[in-house]
Order: sequence, then structure tokens, then C-alpha cells
Amino acid sequence: MLNIGYLGPPGTFSELAVRYYIEEKIKKDMSKNEHQDEIMLTPFSSLQKVLLAVEKGTVTVGIVPLENSVEGAVNQTLDLLAHNFFNIYFQKEIILAVIHHLLVRPGTKLSGLKQIISHPQPLAQCRNYIEQNFPDVETIETSSTASAAALVAGSHEPWAAIGTTLAAENNGLQVLASNINDYPDNATRFMVVGLEDNEQVPGCKTSVIVTIKDRPGALYSILAEFARRNINLTRIESRPAKRKLGDYLFFIDFLGHRLDKEVRKALDEIVNHTLSLRVLGSYPAHQC
Amino acid sequence: MLNIGYLGPPGTFSELAVRYYIEEKIKKDMSKNEHQDEIMLTPFSSLQKVLLAVEKGTVTVGIVPLENSVEGAVNQTLDLLAHNFFNIYFQKEIILAVIHHLLVRPGTKLSGLKQIISHPQPLAQCRNYIEQNFPDVETIETSSTASAAALVAGSHEPWAAIGTTLAAENNGLQVLASNINDYPDNATRFMVVGLEDNEQVPGCKTSVIVTIKDRPGALYSILAEFARRNINLTRIESRPAKRKLGDYLFFIDFLGHRLDKEVRKALDEIVNHTLSLRVLGSYPAHQC
Repeated sequence: MLNIGYLGPPGTFSELAVRYYIEEKIKKDMSKNEHQDEIMLTPFSSLQKVLLAVEKGTVTVGIVPLENSVEGAVNQTLDLLAHNFFNIYFQKEIILAVIHHLLVRPGTKLSGLKQIISHPQPLAQCRNYIEQNFPDVETIETSSTASAAALVAGSHEPWAAIGTTLAAENNGLQVLASNINDYPDNATRFMVVGLEDNEQVPGCKTSVIVTIKDRPGALYSILAEFARRNINLTRIESRPAKRKLGDYLFFIDFLGHRLDKEVRKALDEIVNHTLSLRVLGSYPAHQC
Repeated sequence: MLNIGYLGPPGTFSELAVRYYIEEKIKKDMSKNEHQDEIMLTPFSSLQKVLLAVEKGTVTVGIVPLENSVEGAVNQTLDLLAHNFFNIYFQKEIILAVIHHLLVRPGTKLSGLKQIISHPQPLAQCRNYIEQNFPDVETIETSSTASAAALVAGSHEPWAAIGTTLAAENNGLQVLASNINDYPDNATRFMVVGLEDNEQVPGCKTSVIVTIKDRPGALYSILAEFARRNINLTRIESRPAKRKLGDYLFFIDFLGHRLDKEVRKALDEIVNHTLSLRVLGSYPAHQC
């Protein structure tokens, strides 16, 4: 059985990513005439619990958000991977378009809105829309878009949630304004994670975490190892090392598999310039 | 008159940064026997409003949080500077230690706690403390630690806030547990911003934003210009360019003033490798 852990409750963008993953898997299995596994979805109340279930093997894989084209990194995922979970690998990348809607109980009027409720990322992604249309409305942050929708559905206050049409259907809410994203090309990158990464297939990416102490010039010498071997970096994200201000670690993504000859050479060199180097895994890039 | 804008309400860490700035300024003015300006504090309800007041000249300077040693960049500040405010300069850096406390109404018991309320950053900075001590308590995010304290003070529910001792005093709350930070060396870096930056003084840092399109190797060539002139980078932070996934801009901090000879040469070269380069200002580093 394929048991997939994700950040619940049902109706969030994470569930959309899970559905996308399942559809892709079914297509692939059918094209290979492979036996179809039974599939189970297991929502968890926090990203930490998703990763814990992956580490303990109570789910087969987890699907977690990694970054958004507008809001940037999902810091909680990055920090958990860097500081709390050391046996979890990246298996596959999924990129999903994000479209936000303003959801209310039927009959609620735009003009009377008192509070807009959602997860911090959608609130940030609709910041200009809110400032322009509701300059005096208070925003309240919840742990998911689905729980924001449930909160609005269960109250009698003049509140609105920002969420998916799936969340509107699940909670009997009405779409008062659709497509309220400040930036139209809004997409979120999810990662399928498990206890091992992927074999060498065409179109792979690799993700690593490097820790550098007190010498920002060290980043330059790391990038040089990639540049001189024509390895294309696709992303660099710094996070605090959580020791003191000025100590950072870097999440670096690049094209290629960790077993490719040039990649192996680069990683061997990089070890000399860093306090630590950890390969989070090699995995097929989205739609590969 | 010196009018200082900051993210209110009173009792937040931003107000502690404002107080630190004022004390330092008074000491400096006194040591130079300079006339003491009248000082006014103006709290705003959002970072956007602070920066707008600076841009319009309704306040002399604004003080905004830029990064934290545990949580990383304050994305909202970076994004506003990159996308909405183009005439605002960095004038001075302030670094403050951050200590969090669990605040309740007198008589509330640890064992009965139902919700813990605070700004997303303190909640993240006390994540392990909360998971270990209150695994089943819901966390609720507010716009500031001060408003979380006010919310707890005004309700009859078994709630706690995470905030400063200043917020406890202001709201008649009791410190139920002190120093609950997961990481002891927790510090926040604030920036004093205004309509112009600082003259060439010893101990300056400079901050720039560079935009790079679709060529992550370009970051390497930028870092090379600093490295070959022995200019020390102190920070690199990537943020999405808000166009599509994979387009980034970089906030880069380094030691030196923008008018220093080697810095000028480096910036002149870097212009050739970037879509845009903007100098956010040169300013005395903390305690310079």
C-alpha cells in the first residue's frame, strides 16, 4: 500500500499536490502495465508530524511545500530538514499553480467585512489586494487555508477566508471574489520525501545543504566548483544556522544526479570548503 | 523635531529598538554638546505604513526589522523595499537580543492552556518549547507580540501570549515561563531608514539589491567581483523576483562604504552582470 502523508486538513494546496502526484503515478503505472497499489491519504496537523511519520515509516512518502514563487521559501520545511530530520531524502519535485479566492458564508457583504482569515502565505500573496480593497480589515493567520474556511463557516461574524474552491465546496462557502493573487504567475514547489532518493534518470536535480562558518567568502568558493564544471545552479537559499546572527547555511539546488561524474567531483571539492555538506537527494525535476 | 516611525503597537520589539536608537543618539549628541532635538514616537499598524510615512516625509526616520538569527529574513520588509519603495535608504543598523516569555492573566494554570498566541516569528522561535510542553495546544498568529498580549488580557479564555516583559507590564499579565526561546543566541537586526543614507564614516556596511534573470551562474560572477577586491560579504539573501518560480533577486551586504574606491569598482563591474543593481545605502554597522 502507498500511504501518503501531507499537511492537512483536507482541502489545502498540499492535498492538491497529493492528488497531482497520485494521478501522475497512476498514469505511469498504467503505461508500464504495473500492478496498481492501494493508495491511502494521511493528513497531519503540522509539517513536523508529516516528516516524523516519514522517518518512522508509518507513511511511505510525505509531500511538503518547499517554496513559492511570490513568498519564497517555506522556512519551516527548510529548518526542519536542516535541524531535525537527517534521514529524509527528496524523491520528486511537483510544481503547482496557486490561485486564491475570497470565501464567505452566503449572504455576507463585501462592505461589512471585519476580518480576513487565512494561512500567512495566502495573506502575504494577496497583500496588495487586501490593502487596496479592505484597508481597515484585520487579517488573522491560521495554520491552513482549509481551517480558515472552516472557521468562517462555523461563525456568525462578518469574516472572509482566503482559500481554494475545494475549501469553499467542503465548507458550503461562496466565492465572493476570485483570482485575488497580487501576482498572476503564482506557483508552489512541493517535494515528495521518503527514506531514500531516486536512481539516475534523465532530467534530475540534486539538492544539498552546506554549512559555512563565519566566512561569507566560502560561498564564492563553493559556487566556483559548480561554475568550473558547467553545473547549472537553479536555486540558492540562505537560512540562519540558528547559532548567532551572521552564521548561515545554504540550500543549493542544481541540475544533475549526485552520481554523475562531474557532480561527484564538485561535491568532493566542496567538502573542503564547508563545515558540513549534506545531500538531500537527487530526484526527477517537475514533469520529468 | 525627530519623529520616529515604527511598527506598533507600543510594547513590541520594534519599540525596544526605537528606545535603543534614542538612547544612543542622546549620548552622541551630548558628547558633541549638540542641541537636543525634541523626539516623537509614531507607531504604525503595518510595515508598509511605516515606509510610506518615511517616503512622504511625515516621519524623519523609520525603524524596521530586517532579519533574525533564528527565523531569518523578515520577508515583508525585504519585499516592500524591493518592490514598493524605491527612495528609501539604510542609515544605521541596530542589533537587539530577543528574549521571549510566556504571558498569562494572573491565575491561569499551565495545565489548562488551550491556545498560545503571538506574532509568527516568536511562535517559530519557541516552536520546540511549545511542541514539547504543549503538544496539543493550538497556536494562533497575530500581527504583533503586543496585540497578542492585549488579546489574552481582554479575554476569559485559558490563553497565553508570547511576548516581552514590557508587554506583560502594559497589559497586567504575569510571566508564567521566562526565556522560552529554543535558541539562546537570538538576536534581531533592525534598520533605521530615511530619505538618504550616511556619509563615509569608519565601520560602514553597504546593502544592495541585484536582480538576475534566468542565469543562476550570474550570482557567481557577482561574488567574484567582491572576492577579487577582498571585499567581505556579510550576508546574501535570496528572495523571489515575484515573476515566476526560478527568478530571484539577491540582497547582498558587505563591509565598506559605497564611495570607497574598491567598492565603487566592484559595483561598476557588477552592473554588467545584472538586470538591475540598487544601492540601499551605506551605514555604520551596529555599535560603530
